[in-house]
Amino acid sequence: MKNVDSVIPLLSVNYDKRWEEIYSDFSRFLAFESVSSEAEYKSEVLDCANWLRDYLEAMGLKVSLWETSGHPVVFAVTRDFDASKPTVMIYNHYDVQPVSPLEAWASPPFKATIRDGEIFARGAQDNKGQCFYAITAIKHYLEQLGSLPVNIKLLIEGEEETSSHGLSGLLASKREELCADYLLILDVGFESIDAPAVSLGLRGIATMTVNVRGSNVDLHSGTHGGIVYNPIHALVELLSKLRDESGRIAVPGFYDDVEACSPEFFKEISFEFDHERYCEKFGAKALGGEKSCSPKESAWLRPTIEINGIAGGYAGEGFKTVIPAVATAKISCRLVPNQDPEKIKLLVKDFLEKNCSSAVEINVDLSPGGGKAVRTNSNSLVVRAAHRAFSEIMGVECQYVLEGASIPIVVDLTQATGADVVLLGYGLPDDNIHAPNEHFGVKRFKYGYLTIARILELLGQEVA
Amino acid sequence: MKNVDSVIPLLSVNYDKRWEEIYSDFSRFLAFESVSSEAEYKSEVLDCANWLRDYLEAMGLKVSLWETSGHPVVFAVTRDFDASKPTVMIYNHYDVQPVSPLEAWASPPFKATIRDGEIFARGAQDNKGQCFYAITAIKHYLEQLGSLPVNIKLLIEGEEETSSHGLSGLLASKREELCADYLLILDVGFESIDAPAVSLGLRGIATMTVNVRGSNVDLHSGTHGGIVYNPIHALVELLSKLRDESGRIAVPGFYDDVEACSPEFFKEISFEFDHERYCEKFGAKALGGEKSCSPKESAWLRPTIEINGIAGGYAGEGFKTVIPAVATAKISCRLVPNQDPEKIKLLVKDFLEKNCSSAVEINVDLSPGGGKAVRTNSNSLVVRAAHRAFSEIMGVECQYVLEGASIPIVVDLTQATGADVVLLGYGLPDDNIHAPNEHFGVKRFKYGYLTIARILELLGQEVA
Repeated sequence: MKNVDSVIPLLSVNYDKRWEEIYSDFSRFLAFESVSSEAEYKSEVLDCANWLRDYLEAMGLKVSLWETSGHPVVFAVTRDFDASKPTVMIYNHYDVQPVSPLEAWASPPFKATIRDGEIFARGAQDNKGQCFYAITAIKHYLEQLGSLPVNIKLLIEGEEETSSHGLSGLLASKREELCADYLLILDVGFESIDAPAVSLGLRGIATMTVNVRGSNVDLHSGTHGGIVYNPIHALVELLSKLRDESGRIAVPGFYDDVEACSPEFFKEISFEFDHERYCEKFGAKALGGEKSCSPKESAWLRPTIEINGIAGGYAGEGFKTVIPAVATAKISCRLVPNQDPEKIKLLVKDFLEKNCSSAVEINVDLSPGGGKAVRTNSNSLVVRAAHRAFSEIMGVECQYVLEGASIPIVVDLTQATGADVVLLGYGLPDDNIHAPNEHFGVKRFKYGYLTIARILELLGQEVA
Repeated sequence: MKNVDSVIPLLSVNYDKRWEEIYSDFSRFLAFESVSSEAEYKSEVLDCANWLRDYLEAMGLKVSLWETSGHPVVFAVTRDFDASKPTVMIYNHYDVQPVSPLEAWASPPFKATIRDGEIFARGAQDNKGQCFYAITAIKHYLEQLGSLPVNIKLLIEGEEETSSHGLSGLLASKREELCADYLLILDVGFESIDAPAVSLGLRGIATMTVNVRGSNVDLHSGTHGGIVYNPIHALVELLSKLRDESGRIAVPGFYDDVEACSPEFFKEISFEFDHERYCEKFGAKALGGEKSCSPKESAWLRPTIEINGIAGGYAGEGFKTVIPAVATAKISCRLVPNQDPEKIKLLVKDFLEKNCSSAVEINVDLSPGGGKAVRTNSNSLVVRAAHRAFSEIMGVECQYVLEGASIPIVVDLTQATGADVVLLGYGLPDDNIHAPNEHFGVKRFKYGYLTIARILELLGQEVA
């Protein structure tokens, strides 16, 4: 690590001395089964929110639990607001994805376990890890320096994995509390630990469920095969039309609002991609995407349509010669700047309805909400501060990247706070977030801790 | 019922008097959870076979349990073989389909319950019902007449629902025991109770499982969407090519061996089909099949390819924005005379492998075995006897039909017995066989009982 003229060397030394305490607290946070999507975990989600509130209060912050339509939002601010200092909001979430299939986990998902320098647990990275290194940075900064160089607002929601409905519903009424100069969305990462990067944008998202019904009961495929129209055939015939041979989405109007990326912006982004390494790492034979785009362009600058799930009939062990009554698919679209999720959902629904065999009944159920794509400006102070902090802490020049994933709340939250936003974090593509054996590096936890401390320091000085 | 110059009036009167005893014995048979496909039911299957052995022995038959690679075959013959009488083999099976989903049953699947003149239970029709009316007919015939007009061989296997592997393996070594003049395959039915029919054939079957792999782990559809080739897309694109716009199967060579149906045979078959009634009964909006064929022609004279199951990613409640590692489909083909299941399996496998996106790995796993289609001759004595018995018992002219389903053992069994075969039974299309709430009519049970008794009587006289 580069020696920098700041509090970082001091914090760094103390961090190492306090690692056991840090890990113990982090493990407690990870132990809550705060799965937001499943009703049976409701009390665990609440316990986790209460624990966070107590933890942040003990650090000297003023904490509120905001009731929402779903799980509560934890909101913490530094006491003694100082109008001469900039106000920095850090966004995280304490809810996690389900753990299924449990049997695929090498260690229990809610018992943090370190193997080969990685902390394994559900949420170890997404997003409890990225949340907790920030909390720890603020805690130690306060303890060792007596005060922070900025006013802090921590916004830690409990429904990011289920589309942030609760927080969305509060944005209008909490305008005053949410007001900030800078907004750090601490829920992303970059490609390789050798190449730290700050993200200048996210894709948006729109999702839906398609049901195709051929009959009112499952039918024997011998007796009825050749008579009834098998809804699995209708579904695969329909879904096969979603993309053309070149990998482009065939839904009319889908690309109409796509804003071309300016050459200046394009030049700022590192589109580096190691094809061979990617295929080896993920066991992929070859790649998909639009044939006219490089892989990273496809993932960052272009919208997609992906079938996330399909089911119909019997696909387990053995065989059941059935023609099912219904076949189902789950579809998501990732969106780029200027695409409207509501408009895209209607276009896809219309396409599906028009292209489905008339022998079956189709029902397209559009998921409520969705999210627009996000772009930030590399000239803003907060983006430059993050860029500088990553470069210093990691000892290599930080890059700018984009993020193919979506955090639907970001656009509305940025508006509600009135802040300049930056998207950052220490996630890596093989952290198995949303999958069994999620993990986060012990070293990356420290890098994150120091990076946050350095960003706050730089923003306090209003230089970057 | 027509009065006929035979034992039928006597049996009929006594049947009514003994209904309680018949139903009590039948209920006991239905109570065995003889699910052949699931290992946990193994002892129940064996208990059922043992109960059958004891029941048939008590009737005065000579019974053996033939050990097989799987569940035993129950084989029973009349004592005092009389070389001057013809030998009639009746084929049934005592195994049943699984009952899942249990919650969809209105009454427990292994406790026979009569509602609205129908006996509800797993196996009530397929095939314990059709087996037990035959057994009862033989029992009463023996009791009331002292002897049977034919030598009887009952062949009741325990693996029909799992492809008859065990019985198949015995056909060569049991040639002497299996030798018969006439073979009654008592496991089919007809369209409507007003129009009794004897079946002149079955379709064959060939099945396989297709796995398409895009990566070695499930991937986040935001981060990786646009980069990796989603195996669900590869699978739907592939499966959509199986049939062309006209409903014909697009696999090269698939129809090469299809034997054209002779005009004489075609004329014998009743292809009657009430389109409107079918759609209403099964909630179908419209029909599939080949556009150049009528529904019954499609189901009886033409081969099919049907996707019986498809699965990939997450298709349950809510949403999981995943690009799964693997997507799977189960495919079955129904075959018509002269098509070879082994050849068809290889043709379809080759087509799937050649037409799959090269970005993913495809694996086509061919199920062992399968079955050829069956045709019988309407001029044979046994078919004519069955035709006459149905006509007399039901009081309307019996028709000839075909059966779209498959009983893979039939071709080999016919060869092994050296017998003339007839396919018959009192099943109806809405008996819910292989589905929850399977049922069989109380009246149909009696019709079956009388029909079998009359067929044996006619065959004993060698007239029809």
